[in-house]
Amino acid sequence: MSSSPALPNTTALDPAVAARLKRDAHGLVPAIAQQYDTGEVLMMGWMDDEALHRTLTTGRCTYWSRSRAEYWVKGDTSGHLQLVKSVALDCDGDTVLVKVDQVGAACHTGDRTCFDAGQLLITGS
Amino acid sequence: MSSSPALPNTTALDPAVAARLKRDAHGLVPAIAQQYDTGEVLMMGWMDDEALHRTLTTGRCTYWSRSRAEYWVKGDTSGHLQLVKSVALDCDGDTVLVKVDQVGAACHTGDRTCFDAGQLLITGS
Repeated sequence: MSSSPALPNTTALDPAVAARLKRDAHGLVPAIAQQYDTGEVLMMGWMDDEALHRTLTTGRCTYWSRSRAEYWVKGDTSGHLQLVKSVALDCDGDTVLVKVDQVGAACHTGDRTCFDAGQLLITGS
Repeated sequence: MSSSPALPNTTALDPAVAARLKRDAHGLVPAIAQQYDTGEVLMMGWMDDEALHRTLTTGRCTYWSRSRAEYWVKGDTSGHLQLVKSVALDCDGDTVLVKVDQVGAACHTGDRTCFDAGQLLITGS
């Protein structure tokens, strides 16, 4: 069920929230997942209205997978769930911040976060 | 100078970094700004190769403003600078995480972060 795409206009996302969303040309907004207690930025995914609705109502962070073109309940296959603690929209409605309790690794590589292996710069100050 | 767009192919971004970037159709990647010590997610902006190069080399977080179509050194007009502490690329090269020391408010509304006013859900657990 979690991987079945919603039919157009079948999302039950609160219309008041939907009215605030500024989506890209593909109907998506970037969603930042952050560990709620440590503050680690874990990963970034994409949500359409229905993914946001599912994230708000199921307690499990749900993205739209652009590569697979389907809904993606984080952890459904890996067990590395993201249990939703809070959801916020930014000031211009084009980015979602989801604070979660991440079970295990957020990254498909096994790293805790998707940014662990990609340091480009660390300043001394 | 900071607001002048780079001419095509004039960016001095390290080619090894440029080769890892997966840009959208507009040549941009989302960039998450996070307060380096508290972990607050401050805002999300967009960077092209040159904005990333400037962020890596000037010590001040620099975005590409999609609305104004120009480089945007955060704080140049507001004084609310983002002093760069570290920069990381995610596992698939399509998102940048910049840890900064944010001077004053990150949000144009005067809020500390762009997510402060947009809570959609806070769970009790």
